[in-house]
Amino acid sequence: ADVKKIAVIAGDGIGPEVIAEAEKVLKKTEEVFGYRFETEHGLFGGIAIDQKGTPLPQDTLDMCKNSDAVLLGAVGGPKWDNNPKELRPETGLLGIRKALGLFSNIRPAVIFDCLKDASTLKPEVLEGTDLIVVRELTGGIYFGEKFRREGANGEEAVDTCVYNVQEVERIVRQAFEIAQTRSKRLASVDKANVLETSRLWRETVNRIAPDYPDVELEHVLVDNCAMQLLRRPSSFDVIVTENMFGDILSDEAAMLTGSIGMLSSASLGEGAFGLYEPVHGSAPDIAGQGIANPIATVLSVALMFRLTFGYHDAAEAIERAVKEVLDAGHRTGDIAVDKSKAIGTTAMGDLIVNAI
Amino acid sequence: ADVKKIAVIAGDGIGPEVIAEAEKVLKKTEEVFGYRFETEHGLFGGIAIDQKGTPLPQDTLDMCKNSDAVLLGAVGGPKWDNNPKELRPETGLLGIRKALGLFSNIRPAVIFDCLKDASTLKPEVLEGTDLIVVRELTGGIYFGEKFRREGANGEEAVDTCVYNVQEVERIVRQAFEIAQTRSKRLASVDKANVLETSRLWRETVNRIAPDYPDVELEHVLVDNCAMQLLRRPSSFDVIVTENMFGDILSDEAAMLTGSIGMLSSASLGEGAFGLYEPVHGSAPDIAGQGIANPIATVLSVALMFRLTFGYHDAAEAIERAVKEVLDAGHRTGDIAVDKSKAIGTTAMGDLIVNAI
Ligand SMILES: CC(C)[C@H](C(=O)O)[C@@H](O)C(=O)O
Ligand SMILES: CC(C)[C@H](C(=O)O)[C@@H](O)C(=O)O
Repeated sequence: ADVKKIAVIAGDGIGPEVIAEAEKVLKKTEEVFGYRFETEHGLFGGIAIDQKGTPLPQDTLDMCKNSDAVLLGAVGGPKWDNNPKELRPETGLLGIRKALGLFSNIRPAVIFDCLKDASTLKPEVLEGTDLIVVRELTGGIYFGEKFRREGANGEEAVDTCVYNVQEVERIVRQAFEIAQTRSKRLASVDKANVLETSRLWRETVNRIAPDYPDVELEHVLVDNCAMQLLRRPSSFDVIVTENMFGDILSDEAAMLTGSIGMLSSASLGEGAFGLYEPVHGSAPDIAGQGIANPIATVLSVALMFRLTFGYHDAAEAIERAVKEVLDAGHRTGDIAVDKSKAIGTTAMGDLIVNAI
Repeated sequence: ADVKKIAVIAGDGIGPEVIAEAEKVLKKTEEVFGYRFETEHGLFGGIAIDQKGTPLPQDTLDMCKNSDAVLLGAVGGPKWDNNPKELRPETGLLGIRKALGLFSNIRPAVIFDCLKDASTLKPEVLEGTDLIVVRELTGGIYFGEKFRREGANGEEAVDTCVYNVQEVERIVRQAFEIAQTRSKRLASVDKANVLETSRLWRETVNRIAPDYPDVELEHVLVDNCAMQLLRRPSSFDVIVTENMFGDILSDEAAMLTGSIGMLSSASLGEGAFGLYEPVHGSAPDIAGQGIANPIATVLSVALMFRLTFGYHDAAEAIERAVKEVLDAGHRTGDIAVDKSKAIGTTAMGDLIVNAI
C-alpha cells in the first residue's frame, strides 16, 4: 500500500498521553491490515509558545501541509490563559484551521451503551440519539474584523460577522451529502429573524435544497435548537450551522450524550485532507497522571481512516475493538462507576490494541 | 394608594387568552390589597401588522411610555414568518426593547415541585436548581449595523457586534446586585478567547468586581456554559451575558427546568419601569382553544409587583395562590400527567383568583 503521511500534534495537558495510545493503534493497524503510515511530530499550542514563542510555528504548519492528515491531541491550559492574544493556544487553533482551509467541523454525538447512565438526561429521552453537528469553521464572527474604537459613549469593541454565499454553500452541501448517507434529515440552524448573515444562510440553504430532494430539511432558530436538543435529541440527524452557533450547540450536544470523553471530531476542507481530534480538551487537572481516557483519540484515528483514507476495514476494527474492551467492563476513571477498579491510559490503550 | 398605569399588550396566538387571566388577577389584587391599577390596551406584533401595517404602532409605543409597566402576552406566528423584515412581529419586539431602553432581560429558571418529572434531566441533577439569566437586551449583534455587499467571492452578508463599556457596566452591575440578594454567585459568560467584545466585557467585569466583594465571580466561556448548564445546573445562581449568548443560554436554561410553561420574565431599563411577559411563545398551534396555561403570565404580574411596584405582599399572594392550586392537583393540558383531567385557561385563572 502507499504510505500515508500523518502529522501528529500531541499538544498540551493530557494531549501527549492520549496521542501515545492512538499511535499504538496506528501501528497495530499497519501490522493487521498492511497499511503504511509515516508519522511526523510537531509542536503546537502552549508547548509551542513555551519552546518557540508562538502557538503555531511555521514548521508545524508546513508539516501539516505536507501530510495526508493531522492527528491532534488537545491544546491549552491555565498557564497561557492570561497571555496576550498572539501568545494563546486558541490563536494557534484558529490559525491552523484557516491556514489549512478546514472549513467544516464534524462532530458526531452518539451514545455509548456503557455510558447511557453517564448522561444527565433521562435514558428514555436519550434513547436512539445519534446526531452529527456540521459546524462552519473558517468564517463568521470568529474571523471577521475585530477592533476597539472611541465611540460616543467611551471605548467600544467591535466584532464583525461575515459570510459570503460560497462559504455557506460549500458547508451546507457537505451537510446535505452527509445526511444522504444517514437518516436523511437535515436541520439548518440560524437566527434569520435577527441576523443578516442568517438570512443569507437560509436563502442559500433553500436555493440548494432542491438538489437533495431525498433529504428532509427543517430550519431551526438557534435559541429553539438549544431547547430542542434537550427536549427531543433523538429527532435530530444532521445539524448544520455557522461557526459561533456551532461552537455552542456542538458542545451542548456532546454533553447531553454523557459520552464526552469518548467523542471524536473531524475538521475537513476541500478534498480528503482532514484534522482529527477528540472533542474533550487538554484537562490540565489530570495531566501527567496516566489516567486520561484515550478512547476519543483512538476513535479519531478510526474517523481519519473512514473520512480521509477510506480504510473502512481498519476503522471498523478499531471501533469494534473499543466496543469489545468496554463490553468486557474495562473503564478509565472518567467513565468508571466503581472508580477503584479504573484502569490507566496505557492499560486501556493496550487492551484496545490487543483487541484489534 | 396611587394609581399605577399598566400598558397591556395581548399580542398574537394564545397571548389574548393568557392575558385575560392575568387581568383577572390584577383586579383581584386591587380588591384584596387596595392597590389601584389603570390598564390600557394596545396592538402589537402580528395583529398590529394586520390592522395597522406595522408591528409596533406609534400609539402603542406612546401608551407604553406613559405607563408604569407593560404586561405583554406573546407575539408572532407562521402567518407573518415570511414577511419582509419591517413587517415581522420580531421587528416590533426589538423595536420596543430599544425604544423603551429595556437593556436588561431577567429570566428566572426555577423548578416547580409538581413539574419535577417534566424535565428531560434526571431529578437528582436538577435538584436545587434556581438560577437567573440576566441578558443584555439592547446591544450586541442584534442592533449593530447589518447589510449586504458584493465581496471578492460574490454576495456577502455582514452583521456587526458592538458593545461599549457603559453598556456592559450597567448590565453587569445589575447582575452583581441581583446576586447580592440571592446566593451571591455570579457567572459572567463570554467568548473572550475569540471575540473583542467579549474581551471588553471581561475587562469591565473584572474592573467592577471589587465593588461587590461579597459576590463570588466566575468567568465561563459560552460553549462551556452550554455544557455546564446540563452537567451542574444547580451550581449556578446568577448568569450574566450579552444579547446573543443570552438568547441561546436562557432558552436552554428554561427548557432544562421542564417548567417552561410556568416561567416569567422581566425586561428592565434604568429605574423601576419594566416590561413583563411569559417566557413561552404565542403557541399558534393551540391558540383560540381555551387550553393555554396562564400561569407564566400570572406569575409575570407577580414579578411586576415585586420589581416595578414593590408590592411584595401582593406578589407573594399570587405566587402562593399558584402553588396552592397546583398542590391541589389542578393542571392545564401542557402540565397534566393525566390529560383527560386537564382544565382550561379560564378555569385555571378562576382557581388562582379565588386562592388569592
Ligand atoms: C478554543 C476555541 C477557540 C475553540 C472554538 O471556539 O472554536 C473551541 O471551543 C472549539 O470548539 O474547538
Ligand atoms: C423573537 C426574537 C427576536 C427574540 C430574541 O431573539 O430576542 C426571542 O427569541 C426572545 O428571546 O425574546
